[in-house]
Amino acid sequence: MGKPMALNLLRAGYALTVHSRSRGPVTEVAAAGAADGGSAKGVAERSDVVIAMLPDSPDVRQVVLGPAGVLEGARAGQVVVDMSTISPLVSREIAASLGAKGVESLDAPVSGGQKGAIDAALSIMVGGPRAVFERVLPIFQAMGKNIVHIGDTPGAGQVAKACNQIIVATTIMAVAEALTLARKSGADVAKVRQALLGGFAQSRILDQHGQRILDRNFAPGFRIRLHRKDLGIALDTGKASGVPLMATALVHEAMDAMIAQGHGDLDHSALARFVESLSGIEG
Amino acid sequence: MGKPMALNLLRAGYALTVHSRSRGPVTEVAAAGAADGGSAKGVAERSDVVIAMLPDSPDVRQVVLGPAGVLEGARAGQVVVDMSTISPLVSREIAASLGAKGVESLDAPVSGGQKGAIDAALSIMVGGPRAVFERVLPIFQAMGKNIVHIGDTPGAGQVAKACNQIIVATTIMAVAEALTLARKSGADVAKVRQALLGGFAQSRILDQHGQRILDRNFAPGFRIRLHRKDLGIALDTGKASGVPLMATALVHEAMDAMIAQGHGDLDHSALARFVESLSGIEG
Repeated sequence: MGKPMALNLLRAGYALTVHSRSRGPVTEVAAAGAADGGSAKGVAERSDVVIAMLPDSPDVRQVVLGPAGVLEGARAGQVVVDMSTISPLVSREIAASLGAKGVESLDAPVSGGQKGAIDAALSIMVGGPRAVFERVLPIFQAMGKNIVHIGDTPGAGQVAKACNQIIVATTIMAVAEALTLARKSGADVAKVRQALLGGFAQSRILDQHGQRILDRNFAPGFRIRLHRKDLGIALDTGKASGVPLMATALVHEAMDAMIAQGHGDLDHSALARFVESLSGIEG
Repeated sequence: MGKPMALNLLRAGYALTVHSRSRGPVTEVAAAGAADGGSAKGVAERSDVVIAMLPDSPDVRQVVLGPAGVLEGARAGQVVVDMSTISPLVSREIAASLGAKGVESLDAPVSGGQKGAIDAALSIMVGGPRAVFERVLPIFQAMGKNIVHIGDTPGAGQVAKACNQIIVATTIMAVAEALTLARKSGADVAKVRQALLGGFAQSRILDQHGQRILDRNFAPGFRIRLHRKDLGIALDTGKASGVPLMATALVHEAMDAMIAQGHGDLDHSALARFVESLSGIEG
């Protein structure tokens, strides 16, 4: 995700200094005009706004707070924007560490995937002070389209992203159960999908993933193993705030089972295969 | 539901003979021009097409197959249309009993509620032979708008309706978990809903029931006790065809708990109160 986002920032005319723990993307983005920061600390020393895009909470903690990290190179008045999808609790912890040095921060997770990143069409959900959000907004606009300031609290963007992943996963499970029931009951599954899209059961998931299930098209898209990670964040956030997420937990377990069976790199719509396998339908 | 549907048939110019186990609706519809059949048998004797609209499977079994019922008054070549939401298994049983006497039948459950019935805007999902569907289509068009022939098998319409109720219920649960997590995490719930509607989590449920949850508007709408009945049908259908519906079963249990706590007559969007009560939020 980081590479196409960086290329869009260059295209929008921003001066860019980059670093990645793997060399490949740095070489490519440097060829397009970015400077090589050499380390996260080096990027922070040479930038007004620092953007992180990393797989998970421990990665962000290490790259921002660890040795040769962003915090070491950061100065008061600077802004650090974390666009990774991580735990809101870790977002708060990082915002506090940066804040102690006078550094501003935003959490700004995205949805829209690789395609959204390439097309500069990401949805961006932002937590942190509104004034900081407004200062960074033109930068977000170079990478995304549906950009919403969720709240002033650090982690508010991550909370919205967790909510998004809960709804998407659980709706896929709902569609998977319904279409498997239709199939095993001998109904015309395509007609059931069509009839239901005209009513109260309508959703983008029934439309797009319902079609994927009909077409047996489980090439990612968004991989089950990544969605499982995001549901883990949602469940941890629920535990921290005392919200038992029973449906989400069930879908998390189903994704765990899919991963254990070697299907973690299929698109998340392949949850239908979980319901099907329980129903005696062969993959 | 039966009364406004009958009134729409009269408005469309159909000659109508009616019967109801309660007197009130018969008096009203008779005042608008319908004849009183005196019994279900009496209606069948005087009609070319017989329509049933009843609460649940045992009611349909009794009114169609029981004493002074439709079957007693029916003749070969006639069509019986059951628009109730009942078990597909019972639909098949009734179609077989009618078929043994040469009577055609369709199962044609609806969605759209009281308002859809009054506005002649019901969605109608139809199972049964296509030729019979086409014969009855003008009558359906006097009562509904999104009319889909799901399949030739008796019960196919009921299967589609069960799929609809699975998706609607489970999506409400997904939205309830997400918005409760947002609320307890201190996020701006209205902004979370708004941000998510722009992306892959979009659904009619997030839009309309998400707004209901924000507004604390739990006046029905569609009552929890009726949706619980429909999920019971879905679970029975799943058992009969070997499809374990784990997410649906969870929502069914949640609705059971709501009913036990005296909330069965709230709108089904009040599932949010179930998640909230587990999270220590007072009603």
